[in-house]
Amino acid sequence: MPIIKEVFETIETAIAENNTTSIAQITEDLHPADICAILQEMDEVQQDFILKSLDIEIVALVLTEFDEDAQQTFLKSKTSQEIANYIDCLDSDDAVDMLKPLSIQMREEVVALMKKREKARNITQLLPYDADTAGGLMAKEMIRANVNWNVLQCIEEIRRQAEKVEKIYSIYVVDNKGILLGIVSLKKIILSADNTLIADIFEEDIRSVATHQTEIEVADLMRKYDLETLPVVNVQGKLLGRIAIDDVVDVITEQAELERQLMSGISADIEEDDNLFVLSRARLPWLIIGMFGGISGANFIGLFEKDLILVPAMAFFIPLITATGGNVGIQSSSIILQSLANKTIFNDMSKRLLKVFLVALINGIIIAGIVFGFVIIMGEPLKLALVVSLALFFVIILASFTGTITPIILNKLKINPALASGPFITTANDLLGLAVYFLTARMLYF
Amino acid sequence: MPIIKEVFETIETAIAENNTTSIAQITEDLHPADICAILQEMDEVQQDFILKSLDIEIVALVLTEFDEDAQQTFLKSKTSQEIANYIDCLDSDDAVDMLKPLSIQMREEVVALMKKREKARNITQLLPYDADTAGGLMAKEMIRANVNWNVLQCIEEIRRQAEKVEKIYSIYVVDNKGILLGIVSLKKIILSADNTLIADIFEEDIRSVATHQTEIEVADLMRKYDLETLPVVNVQGKLLGRIAIDDVVDVITEQAELERQLMSGISADIEEDDNLFVLSRARLPWLIIGMFGGISGANFIGLFEKDLILVPAMAFFIPLITATGGNVGIQSSSIILQSLANKTIFNDMSKRLLKVFLVALINGIIIAGIVFGFVIIMGEPLKLALVVSLALFFVIILASFTGTITPIILNKLKINPALASGPFITTANDLLGLAVYFLTARMLYF
Repeated sequence: MPIIKEVFETIETAIAENNTTSIAQITEDLHPADICAILQEMDEVQQDFILKSLDIEIVALVLTEFDEDAQQTFLKSKTSQEIANYIDCLDSDDAVDMLKPLSIQMREEVVALMKKREKARNITQLLPYDADTAGGLMAKEMIRANVNWNVLQCIEEIRRQAEKVEKIYSIYVVDNKGILLGIVSLKKIILSADNTLIADIFEEDIRSVATHQTEIEVADLMRKYDLETLPVVNVQGKLLGRIAIDDVVDVITEQAELERQLMSGISADIEEDDNLFVLSRARLPWLIIGMFGGISGANFIGLFEKDLILVPAMAFFIPLITATGGNVGIQSSSIILQSLANKTIFNDMSKRLLKVFLVALINGIIIAGIVFGFVIIMGEPLKLALVVSLALFFVIILASFTGTITPIILNKLKINPALASGPFITTANDLLGLAVYFLTARMLYF
Repeated sequence: MPIIKEVFETIETAIAENNTTSIAQITEDLHPADICAILQEMDEVQQDFILKSLDIEIVALVLTEFDEDAQQTFLKSKTSQEIANYIDCLDSDDAVDMLKPLSIQMREEVVALMKKREKARNITQLLPYDADTAGGLMAKEMIRANVNWNVLQCIEEIRRQAEKVEKIYSIYVVDNKGILLGIVSLKKIILSADNTLIADIFEEDIRSVATHQTEIEVADLMRKYDLETLPVVNVQGKLLGRIAIDDVVDVITEQAELERQLMSGISADIEEDDNLFVLSRARLPWLIIGMFGGISGANFIGLFEKDLILVPAMAFFIPLITATGGNVGIQSSSIILQSLANKTIFNDMSKRLLKVFLVALINGIIIAGIVFGFVIIMGEPLKLALVVSLALFFVIILASFTGTITPIILNKLKINPALASGPFITTANDLLGLAVYFLTARMLYF
């Protein structure tokens, strides 16, 4: 981003010269997302300086680009009136996101102090919804047309709402009671004569969601049907709001981040620039679980101390056994994760497990075969080569099953199945691998 | 999806009764994505039966919902003329996606046989672009208005293109040479008088991409600025096409899938319903790399056989050491992955590494401390407890660094950094952990 870097330097100069007019000029052509990116690179004094020289509408939009922590840190030093002024400049969904983390008392004060009363009423209606539901994602800004209107009346409504509704995706068609009937595109409005009835041109076949549906259901629906916008209705079918695709893009991105965190054993939504203790605390839980796994493993191997004294070379292959179990387990659960993400429907569980078994059989034979050769080449006795390769074979079969079944069970229990691809499966498979290895050795050796 | 299940059963009955009219009726109200979902549940004979009873436009749209393999399998049995008929029904970007996997000769035949000649020309222009670039994502269907037109002329153009351009996002404003100047929203067109000049109402401040920019750059841009559409221009700034947000949603989803595959050591784009050998082959490369890691580990431990004979209990803690190294490494690289995904700019590498070191220090002291206690409780000698906990401490520090640096280096080398969170880092850290463990033991013990 060379352009941003240039701007960044110009702004630093302006700050050094205490030149607010120049900052307002520089940032005039910048998108709020760019201003946000620039602010992230500055210290607090510089940030304050920039934010003070910007128009209040711009500051409000820049705030929506901040992550929640940074947003709340900024708002903490502001009065209810100042916050109300920012909220007045925002779309209802962004306003609600900003208000939710505040105390209930603060929220009520802010809403009471807002100048735009209709927006204040909209916000009051939106606040009760959980952030991860359709109700929590929706905004109130939209064009709503009565089915009995004609095109001219519809255009009048667009004109009336023009300032409030910046981006028009579609026009929602409702009856006298506000029940959602369908949708009419702007293209149809433009191409139809002024006296055409909306009833004659609107499309009835329309997808909508209820307020309580989850953000993941919303994202799946919009992705599956390539929708730019999705109306939200209550139980009676009354139109309450709309969700736009850009919010859903954020949901999809967040889901991918969450999955990455679960797969890598990080327990909270952290970022590299969080402080030391946040970073440390987010990582400790999985490290401690892994540690207990390791200590259990140590205790388990301890049971076979006599075997190890007799055949010390058995210890050489412990990492091979545990690593293979981990790798196979993660591969298996990742394939299930993908099926779950793509909503592939599984009719036949036994057929699926047979396939898992057959793939494991092929890979197990290949890997065990190569390892058998290597152990012989290393000069170890035939019996040890047999133990190692047989154990490896069993571990590959077993880890395939645990890796397949764990995410399916987690998903049934409404727990994020990505958890199964994290250190969880590695730790469990380590123990499983050790058990298989030492028990195989017992049977063949001692 | 209970509704789809019902439809599914009705269709099965219709097929059993050989009733094509009934199938056409049932599928009439279904979205192509739903028809595709139903087809996936059927055998080939049933699939053929359904596809034969559908209108050609519907079949073409259903085909775009297929994954590439299924699409090409279906097309294999069709003549060039039949494929040309499908292509005639599609938007240019979908048409190009369908044509690209065909042989060059087949492609040329199909394009030559198309009825819609303007679409055929568009497709010929789009075919040369790589699928993962802006050129490969763009479609030609869009409304283009000359800056010298007035609103009425613009509406005439929309009317003229109405059939070709189903969804209108925005109207692109160009000069006489076709150079992109800006954008005008449908809202502005509706609210302006017929004789208003486009020049007076269009917005100049507009983002665009060049054909060669990558799909990831496109996705980042659209996500960052909440764009529904992005115009694509050539080096001269001439408007060539547009990319819509729904295509970018697919790009984002694919990126997340790719990352998951890299993190879990699966080497190709596979799905659960692929055949045994595809599944097996996609998993083998990483298993074999892991296996060589394990064999190297075995050889390495072999160097310390004498130490193991003296202190067999050392073997107990091998899994603890390797697992902790793996977990810490994956956590570290996952945090970097997140920073890279969010395009956080890192100015100060030494500051970042200092932070990594400090977090590792805190977690290392805590984990090593707990483990020290447990080894003592297990009744092992003080010296062994010291070796295990010290080695663990060093492993946590070292794995934090390798986990941090590997994805950064991969990213600089233009290799997907998610590779660093996969079996790669686990295998490397296993070896690192073993080295640290046995060398620490050598120093303290022998």
